[in-house]
Amino acid sequence: MSKLIFYGYLICPFAQRVRFALEALKIDYEFVHIDLHAGAQKEEAYLKINPFGKLPSIQIDGKVVYESLILLEFLGDHFGGVFPKDDFAKAESRIWANYFDQNVASKVFPLFGLKKANNQEGIEKQAQEILNNIKFFTQKSGLEDRIKNNPQSYFNGNQLSFVDFVVAPHIRNIETFFKLFVGRSIYSFAEPNESIQNFEKYSKNILQSQPYLSITDKLKQLPPIETNSFLKEIGVDSIEKFNYEHFFKEFHQKKFLS
Amino acid sequence: MSKLIFYGYLICPFAQRVRFALEALKIDYEFVHIDLHAGAQKEEAYLKINPFGKLPSIQIDGKVVYESLILLEFLGDHFGGVFPKDDFAKAESRIWANYFDQNVASKVFPLFGLKKANNQEGIEKQAQEILNNIKFFTQKSGLEDRIKNNPQSYFNGNQLSFVDFVVAPHIRNIETFFKLFVGRSIYSFAEPNESIQNFEKYSKNILQSQPYLSITDKLKQLPPIETNSFLKEIGVDSIEKFNYEHFFKEFHQKKFLS
Repeated sequence: MSKLIFYGYLICPFAQRVRFALEALKIDYEFVHIDLHAGAQKEEAYLKINPFGKLPSIQIDGKVVYESLILLEFLGDHFGGVFPKDDFAKAESRIWANYFDQNVASKVFPLFGLKKANNQEGIEKQAQEILNNIKFFTQKSGLEDRIKNNPQSYFNGNQLSFVDFVVAPHIRNIETFFKLFVGRSIYSFAEPNESIQNFEKYSKNILQSQPYLSITDKLKQLPPIETNSFLKEIGVDSIEKFNYEHFFKEFHQKKFLS
Repeated sequence: MSKLIFYGYLICPFAQRVRFALEALKIDYEFVHIDLHAGAQKEEAYLKINPFGKLPSIQIDGKVVYESLILLEFLGDHFGGVFPKDDFAKAESRIWANYFDQNVASKVFPLFGLKKANNQEGIEKQAQEILNNIKFFTQKSGLEDRIKNNPQSYFNGNQLSFVDFVVAPHIRNIETFFKLFVGRSIYSFAEPNESIQNFEKYSKNILQSQPYLSITDKLKQLPPIETNSFLKEIGVDSIEKFNYEHFFKEFHQKKFLS
């Protein structure tokens, strides 16, 4: 089998889903950095690989697959290990990943529009809705019970799987967006509430996992500076100078608030 | 294995996707009609089956699965026969079903808002966009080439599969919406154009297939009148008096234009 090439942007949540899965599944891949910030996904070099200019993509055996959720499904079909084995549990995973996408992840970006419009009331309302949906997700999916029984648990137990891959990149995204656009942590909105605390525990389990660290805080190598205009801008030219959280916040501050 | 129970509303496109698949795959099921028109999906009887009030649902072995695309995936996992066997072709199927959902199906409903606002220019623009996206779908997915080589082809050849299930209910939906809200057939917008003609051929192959006919024009039995407020309203009380196209148009006219 020919080598798998993964095309993605370092902090794009959709790219991170797939790269996180590749790391968790220990699939050998070459990471090719495409500078979304500079629009490289619409340049000819990348359009030769993916004529639709979609990012992330996986190229394998000369064929290209794209769209983050479809890529995760593809990894499951091609390599296994992405989903729980039971068909109903697999359907449940898809249902809750879909819920998280529609009701949590997609509600976060509108915060920056509200911030730009200086609509404080709108921000508080949106923040409360996101929080309520995280509670719903945690309770109704059964995650809360699993965390209570096993505080180290991921969505389906001790193995990282589909829902974790989908949720993972949004955990820091949510927190960064809240701090930047709402002015405080999402968890400061919560009354003391078991569901939110259990979601926090779950989040930490993901953020501290080796596969997650190796695509964020403990990068094996830095993307080449010439394919990352933003690293260049903030003067990061070696892996020693790279701090994921700083990079991530700077990027969003500049992108959305400057 | 216990019997599969399928809960859906007769003309709901999301229910039709799944029921079409059940028919195509020759899976034995009991059809329980839930009157979406009367809000029965939010009544206690149905909430006992699906606490989220989502429609359609499948119940099997006491477990419930919902969301039309996830249901199709579940049927594939549980019974087989939904996807082409090759992993890349399977990913392609998901990509194009997703494209059709986002760029064609979801663009159709806004037409009725434009119609209500009497925004003729908006209607023409929206209609043109839908048409362009159907062309893109037909050309780029390879469907056009397949239809040229085999005029009887479905999306993946001679067998109905995932993309056909996803697209099928929208074919008549699009045509009905265009006639009602735009005032003419979608195909009247097209310059003589091979892609549109090939999409029409593909559409006809689906609409004339036995599994499609048996969920629309050639119903084996009528849903009980008491679980269909609209059949009652228009005085259809026997399968002989049932005409799918009439029912479908009346329903949308009343729902969206009255």
